[in-house]
Amino acid sequence: MSPKEHPLEFLFHPRSVAVVGASTTQGMGGGFVTALLEIKYPGQLYPVNPKAEELQGLKCYPRLLDVPGQVDYVISSVPAQVVPQLIEDCAAKGVKAIHFFTAGFSETGEADRAEMETQVLHRARELGIRVIGPNCMGLYCPEAGLSFMPGMPNEPGPVGMASQSGANAGDVCRTGGARGLRYSKAISYGNAADLDESDFFEYLAQDPKTEVILGYIEGVKDGHRFLNALRTAATAKPVIILKGGRTEAGGRATMSHTGSLAGALQVFDAACRQAGALRVDSIDELIDCAVAFLFVRGLSGPRVGIVGAGGGHSVLAADEVAAAGLQVPPLPEETQRALAEFTPIAGTSVRNPVDTNVGWGPDGPRLQRETLRLVAEAPNIDVIFFQAHVGWGPGRRGGGGFDPIEQAKQLAVSTGEAMAQFGKPVVAAIRPPLTPEAMEATAAFQEEAAARGLATYPSVGQAARALRRLLEWQAGREAMEV
Amino acid sequence: MSPKEHPLEFLFHPRSVAVVGASTTQGMGGGFVTALLEIKYPGQLYPVNPKAEELQGLKCYPRLLDVPGQVDYVISSVPAQVVPQLIEDCAAKGVKAIHFFTAGFSETGEADRAEMETQVLHRARELGIRVIGPNCMGLYCPEAGLSFMPGMPNEPGPVGMASQSGANAGDVCRTGGARGLRYSKAISYGNAADLDESDFFEYLAQDPKTEVILGYIEGVKDGHRFLNALRTAATAKPVIILKGGRTEAGGRATMSHTGSLAGALQVFDAACRQAGALRVDSIDELIDCAVAFLFVRGLSGPRVGIVGAGGGHSVLAADEVAAAGLQVPPLPEETQRALAEFTPIAGTSVRNPVDTNVGWGPDGPRLQRETLRLVAEAPNIDVIFFQAHVGWGPGRRGGGGFDPIEQAKQLAVSTGEAMAQFGKPVVAAIRPPLTPEAMEATAAFQEEAAARGLATYPSVGQAARALRRLLEWQAGREAMEV
Repeated sequence: MSPKEHPLEFLFHPRSVAVVGASTTQGMGGGFVTALLEIKYPGQLYPVNPKAEELQGLKCYPRLLDVPGQVDYVISSVPAQVVPQLIEDCAAKGVKAIHFFTAGFSETGEADRAEMETQVLHRARELGIRVIGPNCMGLYCPEAGLSFMPGMPNEPGPVGMASQSGANAGDVCRTGGARGLRYSKAISYGNAADLDESDFFEYLAQDPKTEVILGYIEGVKDGHRFLNALRTAATAKPVIILKGGRTEAGGRATMSHTGSLAGALQVFDAACRQAGALRVDSIDELIDCAVAFLFVRGLSGPRVGIVGAGGGHSVLAADEVAAAGLQVPPLPEETQRALAEFTPIAGTSVRNPVDTNVGWGPDGPRLQRETLRLVAEAPNIDVIFFQAHVGWGPGRRGGGGFDPIEQAKQLAVSTGEAMAQFGKPVVAAIRPPLTPEAMEATAAFQEEAAARGLATYPSVGQAARALRRLLEWQAGREAMEV
Repeated sequence: MSPKEHPLEFLFHPRSVAVVGASTTQGMGGGFVTALLEIKYPGQLYPVNPKAEELQGLKCYPRLLDVPGQVDYVISSVPAQVVPQLIEDCAAKGVKAIHFFTAGFSETGEADRAEMETQVLHRARELGIRVIGPNCMGLYCPEAGLSFMPGMPNEPGPVGMASQSGANAGDVCRTGGARGLRYSKAISYGNAADLDESDFFEYLAQDPKTEVILGYIEGVKDGHRFLNALRTAATAKPVIILKGGRTEAGGRATMSHTGSLAGALQVFDAACRQAGALRVDSIDELIDCAVAFLFVRGLSGPRVGIVGAGGGHSVLAADEVAAAGLQVPPLPEETQRALAEFTPIAGTSVRNPVDTNVGWGPDGPRLQRETLRLVAEAPNIDVIFFQAHVGWGPGRRGGGGFDPIEQAKQLAVSTGEAMAQFGKPVVAAIRPPLTPEAMEATAAFQEEAAARGLATYPSVGQAARALRRLLEWQAGREAMEV
């Protein structure tokens, strides 16, 4: 361990992993071996289960003590009652950290099970073993080949997440992955008996691989310590938190889920305000804001130029942008004149929104690019919203050599190039696809867009609300620096 | 014409249609012939274009006057300058109604073009020809085999729509179609030079094929008449309106789009309140409310039982439901006890949300059904929200004979059957799919669900907000009846 290394850094670099209680099916808890194989974990992987000799092509061991080599990290899928013995076995094998997928502890609300959690923690501390969980999915760290769920992005990236819920972390990583987000690490930490939100926020604050921090938090173990960790994190990088249990009904649910006291939302919000962190209301808003912070990064102001085909969609886009607190100023006279030179007068508008059909003709790509150039160069525009009707409705392949998937790619490439060349941020809004083929076109667009730093949103409203949050965050940051 | 037939009924039953200016490509305006062929228009279909002898397998005529038979209905795709001559030709052929896809009239904001619109209207009235538009997509009426866009549902159904935007009408019909909505007719009427929102609301109010009326309105021609039409419509059936131009920026856009004065939102809202109509803010909310009115129909109260797998998703669902103004009451002790008899204690909750993994085991379907039965029979629950994790994340086929698409179908069938048997409304929330295969599974679920009257939503939040609107509408309706 280098002198500068954070004390939790070792968690993300196990040379060997044992999955104890690895399921022989791919259901309930059996997903860990599948997930680690899928992401190509490069170290030694040992499934442990007395009922199998082999598991997904790997030799399976009856007990942890039967594993021949060193074991750095244990994923526990055994029932709660077996955990005390497992801890002793871990100590004997020199295990440094245990992740307990195992549930059935304090979150049940039963006194004897809460007491068992306390004893497990006590014994682990005596033995110098760090605990993640119980009742959680553990670690996803693509750079190290760690994953807790199939279908997560394989490539690493700059988003770090600490989440009390494994399913929510998986949802953010998968759904955000389709929008181009890639992750340094996502930690699902459940009941937080040992390592908690403060530990992980402190870690992510100093992690050089993490540029934006996301959180899903149901309850906070130590308010004072959390406020410090949050301030440290939010001073270092943007922090966006989804608070589970923001209502009374949700708070009852957090108690059943992770045994967490949700606390008053006003207190949590005050902490976020003081620290300079953003609180959001849903997984989609968390992803939308992460996309804004990572792809758009800085906004010079709230003035939006809307470009795309469709008068009705243009009207609704203007409404959504204005309702989100951004602006849709009329373009300067000279910009309108220049657009009018090549935009047909019938069925269009060059005022802002620029409702244009030039992209449909044979000279489409050039004219679309020219449209983006003129709007980008307008002095009263800070950001362009491009309504890309990729994959909207049922896509159709064939028919005159038209390939919607290739066309979607080309549109993303040319829009990304225009953004780079004309020097104004562009975000693309795409209506959700309705057919498998339209989904392929959407995915193709999103992949090429992400590669070029072009943000994509499923609706203009979501884009507008996320950029509004980015502007608010920028203003708060400036106020702090004054 | 029978004595009771509404004076606009003839619009939806043309025995022959001519598409004048039919494009030889499938782009810009060329879609009408494609759309009519796709929906199998049963009457005579005549493309008219001097540059082609044949178009998509149909004989093409140089001018309208060259068409041999009777022409009831004309779709005009010719440039605006040619329209005066076209009207004379229509009169000579005995045409009863013209739909002008043709744009470039009053919406351009140019005086000479606005004057041309006035003259066209004047001449059409002299000749006894009704006009739809200009600057619109016209008629979709699957029962009559009329359509203006490929990819619309082929089967008729109970939703009627009047829309000033063709793209928005198409979006509602296609996107809502995937959610199980089917349509009696959708009318895109653009600049509303002749037939306007009041005409179509009056028509839909008395149309026996229409049970729910949707509107997309940018501006109102005659406020007094519209208030009467809206009251007539909303007294007869639920009316849900998306108002384009609810902000100042949107209002500038409606002027460019259809030449409509958007007017003050407060005035429009007051009209909706007086009439008993709902106003919504987006296409998605319009669809969500239509799904609630058609599938859920009546709600006995705001108390929601949440059922599904995933602790974090359950917490967020409770928050979303409560934030929307509905309730998530703890289930009665005896219901919790009965659920606990077969629900594993680890990683679950039986309080409400019911966070249950019983569906994953070999006896999954029976236990899931038993869970739904117990929650449905709880006396303090009015509606069940079922978080169906169909297609969420990347679906995977194969692997132990597991077929996600077949499983999605079966889940919709069994949930629909449970709803019918246990007598409480159920709505299913499904996270948007991320892969083509997951989309197939989602579509399979949605199709089977719709066939059984089971409402589906892309998120718990959208479901909760739509049901809240349904409850508000019910309360308003009761207040009126008192």
